[in-house]
Amino acid sequence: MRVSQKVKNILSAYESDNPGTKGNLARILMHGKLGGTGKLLILPVDQGFEHGPARSFAPNPSGYDPHYHFKLAIDAGLSAYAAPLGMIEAGADSFAGAIPTILKCNSANSLSTNKDQALTASVGDALRLGCAAIGFTIYPGSEDQFELIEEIRELAEEAKAVGLAVVVWSYPRGGIVTKEGETAMDICAYAAHMAALIGAHIIKVKPPTDSIFLDAAKKVYAAQDIAASTLKQRIEHVVQSCFNGKRIVVFSGGEAKDLDGIFAEVTAIRDGGGNGSIIGRNTFQRPREEALKMLEQIIKIYLNKA
Amino acid sequence: MRVSQKVKNILSAYESDNPGTKGNLARILMHGKLGGTGKLLILPVDQGFEHGPARSFAPNPSGYDPHYHFKLAIDAGLSAYAAPLGMIEAGADSFAGAIPTILKCNSANSLSTNKDQALTASVGDALRLGCAAIGFTIYPGSEDQFELIEEIRELAEEAKAVGLAVVVWSYPRGGIVTKEGETAMDICAYAAHMAALIGAHIIKVKPPTDSIFLDAAKKVYAAQDIAASTLKQRIEHVVQSCFNGKRIVVFSGGEAKDLDGIFAEVTAIRDGGGNGSIIGRNTFQRPREEALKMLEQIIKIYLNKA
Amino acid sequence: MRVSQKVKNILSAYESDNPGTKGNLARILMHGKLGGTGKLLILPVDQGFEHGPARSFAPNPSGYDPHYHFKLAIDAGLSAYAAPLGMIEAGADSFAGAIPTILKCNSANSLSTNKDQALTASVGDALRLGCAAIGFTIYPGSEDQFELIEEIRELAEEAKAVGLAVVVWSYPRGGIVTKEGETAMDICAYAAHMAALIGAHIIKVKPPTDSIFLDAAKKVYAAQDIAASTLKQRIEHVVQSCFNGKRIVVFSGGEAKDLDGIFAEVTAIRDGGGNGSIIGRNTFQRPREEALKMLEQIIKIYLNKA
Amino acid sequence: MRVSQKVKNILSAYESDNPGTKGNLARILMHGKLGGTGKLLILPVDQGFEHGPARSFAPNPSGYDPHYHFKLAIDAGLSAYAAPLGMIEAGADSFAGAIPTILKCNSANSLSTNKDQALTASVGDALRLGCAAIGFTIYPGSEDQFELIEEIRELAEEAKAVGLAVVVWSYPRGGIVTKEGETAMDICAYAAHMAALIGAHIIKVKPPTDSIFLDAAKKVYAAQDIAASTLKQRIEHVVQSCFNGKRIVVFSGGEAKDLDGIFAEVTAIRDGGGNGSIIGRNTFQRPREEALKMLEQIIKIYLNKA
Amino acid sequence: MRVSQKVKNILSAYESDNPGTKGNLARILMHGKLGGTGKLLILPVDQGFEHGPARSFAPNPSGYDPHYHFKLAIDAGLSAYAAPLGMIEAGADSFAGAIPTILKCNSANSLSTNKDQALTASVGDALRLGCAAIGFTIYPGSEDQFELIEEIRELAEEAKAVGLAVVVWSYPRGGIVTKEGETAMDICAYAAHMAALIGAHIIKVKPPTDSIFLDAAKKVYAAQDIAASTLKQRIEHVVQSCFNGKRIVVFSGGEAKDLDGIFAEVTAIRDGGGNGSIIGRNTFQRPREEALKMLEQIIKIYLNKA
Repeated sequence: MRVSQKVKNILSAYESDNPGTKGNLARILMHGKLGGTGKLLILPVDQGFEHGPARSFAPNPSGYDPHYHFKLAIDAGLSAYAAPLGMIEAGADSFAGAIPTILKCNSANSLSTNKDQALTASVGDALRLGCAAIGFTIYPGSEDQFELIEEIRELAEEAKAVGLAVVVWSYPRGGIVTKEGETAMDICAYAAHMAALIGAHIIKVKPPTDSIFLDAAKKVYAAQDIAASTLKQRIEHVVQSCFNGKRIVVFSGGEAKDLDGIFAEVTAIRDGGGNGSIIGRNTFQRPREEALKMLEQIIKIYLNKA
Repeated sequence: MRVSQKVKNILSAYESDNPGTKGNLARILMHGKLGGTGKLLILPVDQGFEHGPARSFAPNPSGYDPHYHFKLAIDAGLSAYAAPLGMIEAGADSFAGAIPTILKCNSANSLSTNKDQALTASVGDALRLGCAAIGFTIYPGSEDQFELIEEIRELAEEAKAVGLAVVVWSYPRGGIVTKEGETAMDICAYAAHMAALIGAHIIKVKPPTDSIFLDAAKKVYAAQDIAASTLKQRIEHVVQSCFNGKRIVVFSGGEAKDLDGIFAEVTAIRDGGGNGSIIGRNTFQRPREEALKMLEQIIKIYLNKA
Repeated sequence: MRVSQKVKNILSAYESDNPGTKGNLARILMHGKLGGTGKLLILPVDQGFEHGPARSFAPNPSGYDPHYHFKLAIDAGLSAYAAPLGMIEAGADSFAGAIPTILKCNSANSLSTNKDQALTASVGDALRLGCAAIGFTIYPGSEDQFELIEEIRELAEEAKAVGLAVVVWSYPRGGIVTKEGETAMDICAYAAHMAALIGAHIIKVKPPTDSIFLDAAKKVYAAQDIAASTLKQRIEHVVQSCFNGKRIVVFSGGEAKDLDGIFAEVTAIRDGGGNGSIIGRNTFQRPREEALKMLEQIIKIYLNKA
Repeated sequence: MRVSQKVKNILSAYESDNPGTKGNLARILMHGKLGGTGKLLILPVDQGFEHGPARSFAPNPSGYDPHYHFKLAIDAGLSAYAAPLGMIEAGADSFAGAIPTILKCNSANSLSTNKDQALTASVGDALRLGCAAIGFTIYPGSEDQFELIEEIRELAEEAKAVGLAVVVWSYPRGGIVTKEGETAMDICAYAAHMAALIGAHIIKVKPPTDSIFLDAAKKVYAAQDIAASTLKQRIEHVVQSCFNGKRIVVFSGGEAKDLDGIFAEVTAIRDGGGNGSIIGRNTFQRPREEALKMLEQIIKIYLNKA
Repeated sequence: MRVSQKVKNILSAYESDNPGTKGNLARILMHGKLGGTGKLLILPVDQGFEHGPARSFAPNPSGYDPHYHFKLAIDAGLSAYAAPLGMIEAGADSFAGAIPTILKCNSANSLSTNKDQALTASVGDALRLGCAAIGFTIYPGSEDQFELIEEIRELAEEAKAVGLAVVVWSYPRGGIVTKEGETAMDICAYAAHMAALIGAHIIKVKPPTDSIFLDAAKKVYAAQDIAASTLKQRIEHVVQSCFNGKRIVVFSGGEAKDLDGIFAEVTAIRDGGGNGSIIGRNTFQRPREEALKMLEQIIKIYLNKA
């Protein structure tokens, strides 16, 4: 594998990481149809944990089988596949080497009454399963946020020492954060910045709305005249909050929506300088052929061919 | 021992496990009268912990003696015997090699006021006692669910590393889950799926009723027209939720009931593609001869001879 | 030391224990005037922790000196002496080898407002002090019961690995358990059974009353017609609940009472098949000569000479 | 150093300790003007933590400098100097070998709202700083008492293994203990006894008043006619509660008071068989010359020369 | 590097530290334009964590890039640069050896509802990133203060063992401490003293106001006539509370303010014997040239040239 100049530039910003971790970041950045472009398209399948199997897979029952997602991610030419322990264990051998995998190491579920997640996998699991990275969710604002941060701190130190990359899902919720606040522009940027500060290599946040949540932030956003009217501008702000673009940031697709909505969002992410998308339900809840077509179009957008 | 093709197929789905763990799964799957068929009949005796000795054993006082259950499981040709530390310690030497044992590593009791279990045994105990697997209960929904999940995560990683299999009792209760919700179809499938996601090799759930508990699930079950009117269909749904049948799932017998009720349930489990039954009180609270007869009939059903 | 056939039989039920642990159980079972009979008479002195020094020792001030209890236990020909760390440290060297000791590893005190105990000694302490066993109290029913069970689980695994025996004081209290419930027959049997299930070698409970506490138990005790009218019958029930007599169970003396009351209780314990008594305050709060006489009489009862 | 017969006798009661720990106890017992007499006079300076620097040192600003206290303790011929980590670190090298030091390993402060202490130093710190002992405060009665006891249990085991001595400040407070209860005779004796039971080598309590706090104790103190009218008698009771004098017990000076009050208290401690005093504020809040004079007089009292 | 006599004198007070730690303290004290003078000027950039990226960096967007702060600190000739993990990782290689770095190991954020911080970096991180020291915030008074103290205790022991220096931000807040109390003179001095007692090498507090917060302190400050009317006098009191000047204490700049205010504060710190300043927002929120000018002037003040 010859690493592209674009990817070399991205890797150079991870200047404190060892060659093992840089190698795994390169594996992800060089893989699939976006390989070498600095853009990423990742398939995450942890919705079975978060929402239950039927809500996740009944619309397209092929998804009950863990192999389906591996194949879909490979056939679509995606950058990586992210899932909880059981899902990865069920396909890691069959698809060894075929696509970089991200082991999601914590999960919540719909029966929970607090804003926390349970640890469900370890760095040791990621190593034995041949994963390129670990994934972890933090809930900034939640009453358990510090415990979550301390858990990823420990896992991240361990992962970096053995040459794995670290992907952080930074989803503000709980405590003083309202539903609207969860995707407010200041909060999304803050969430992304915190993930960067705790040492994430790849940051995942939701696309920000034009709302500003914290009073103290409102004054600054007004005084500094931070552009927020278009999604592209808001993406730019999040990218800036990720060490001025020195950390990879990808955006989630959120709830199932129509194709035009998805493509418009992806275009804004691209134009705002975001590194890509991580799209779950919008992918695997469609029939395979439709999903492949959709992913092909998203890839075209990121390749500036659409 | 020559492993049957049926069992080889089942084992092939555990593609990330080491030969030690696969060997122990094979020991269970090849043992007893159902050996080699891919079906399992397991005797669990942890009711003394959960309900007290008299409520468990007074109806058939032979059961106060730990050897009774080992002998019963062996004589009936069952697949495995599962019990807490003290019960296994009291017979592990006398019956070494005679039947695969599952060390139940956590337990609750009737005096408890919260939905939690205490750790009562370790992977080290399972090894020194020659067990084939560890067993562990999680209570999805309970306020302590994440601690329970994190405990089994740690035990499971340790067990897999030393070649043991992992059996998870997934019993939703507590928090928002009502009594009816505990056995609702969506909740049973969700509980089974979570156990699969945290890496269980064998999953134990209760037979689901035709009730749907979560509002968000009701919409999906209606929209996707998921068949739920017969127990066979509901079993199929749970099997599907276990990685489309790639994980072994067995069903508990629940409270003592009449023989016809038991046989009907077993037939539905078989027809729905479930891997078998784990029957405690219905077994050891009957006189030995009656119990042996009942187990013989259940085995016949699983062998399609009844 | 030649181990008697009676003791060999008892030891054979501890079939999963290593020779070190069996050797220490044998040390206790073969020691003193009851040596070889399968009966035990143990002196526990942890009341200074539980009730304070004056309430414990002022009635017989010799007891303030830790050596007093060692000597008393030795001179009376008892089976073992149990006490907290400081008490054992203060005599372990002077009386090394003279009597088996049980290091009580947790303790509560009269100033506590919750039903818990603090860990006050370790397995390492027991080894360096030459003890034959560790002792530990659990409070089934208490809000802290699972933490207590998890503590003894860990200590017991460690103790068994280094060849020590494990003695569990199983005293239901707290939570839903009322004062009357603490000594109810179903609760005492349940408490003894739980201690057996978590792997105790020697179980200590209170003599049960003829009360039945749990509603679910009441039905079973009535339906199964479990004899409960005499203390002998209730002791039999507790013995049965200890793996049908395969685990040693001893009974505490409770609050100070008159000699006739003590002897009657001991006779019932003997006739019900209990393995012996563990008597603290009734021993050391009497003048030494009276205590020796009382213990002599108890020994006679257990030897069937009274 | 030739150890006096008196000290040898005291050491002989620590029969389970290794030569390292006995050696460090001997260092303290043989040091200073009371060396060899079995009496101790210790300077503790942790009031900066408990009350703040100005409340502690402003009355005699020399005390802001950690060296001042080392020098004062050495020049006065005291037995040992006890202080938190920072204070010891700031003088351990300059005064290495000049006086035995006790590293106070936990501390509270005036801003705290619960009755607990924070761990602030370790056994490893004590070793690298050349200390003879670790010091630790427990608050019997407090809601955090069991955590405190478990912390010192662990530290004490570690300290004894590496040959250090263990000094326990046993100060009842919190929970059901009222302000008056904190120094009640039964509570002081109970606190001293608990410290002995958890394995302390040197016990520090407050001089008891003639109040009896616990109802259950009142009956016993009355029934047994325990002498309590003079401080000497109450000291005797505390000494008796320390394993009948087999554990060293010293008494704190408490709040600053006049010299006559101090000398009277010291005389009672001596006459009651106490092993000495540990006097902080009354020492370092006086000008150095006055403090030296006061300490000289206290030493004379303990030497029976006053 | 030839260590100045002034710095040698300062280092001599850290008499219990190993040469590694003294070497790192020397690196900080000898670096930059104040090198060798015993004065320090430190740039801290953890405001992105505490307040979010826009509130921190939008006024001068160059600050979004982690390299900006490294360069600024180097170009201004500062003593050290302090930041959380991600910020240090993003520049540690580019600027290796160019300026001593302090790895801030815990952080809070504006979404938190309690007065605590999350651990976000380790001593291992500090070593692999070539840092000279770890930094840590405690909140004396907060309900979580003891946990924070216990965390830094453990980190500090580990850091000292591997030759790192320890910088403690001691910021009273929470519990009984009011907003005004946070900067009251007695509380600032108390906070600084506690940091010294737990073994900090460099202490960071806020400049004290002339308010006295604790009632018990008010009496003492009045009785002892402690000078408090000028900031210089209050700085002197804090310096005295840091082991009479034997521990380095620096003062934070607090919220953005005008230049005259900053210079007046710095002059008072210098005249009161403080060791320097740690100035974040007032530095990086100004345009680079203005910031460099301001820092130049502060350095002149500390050099007694202004």
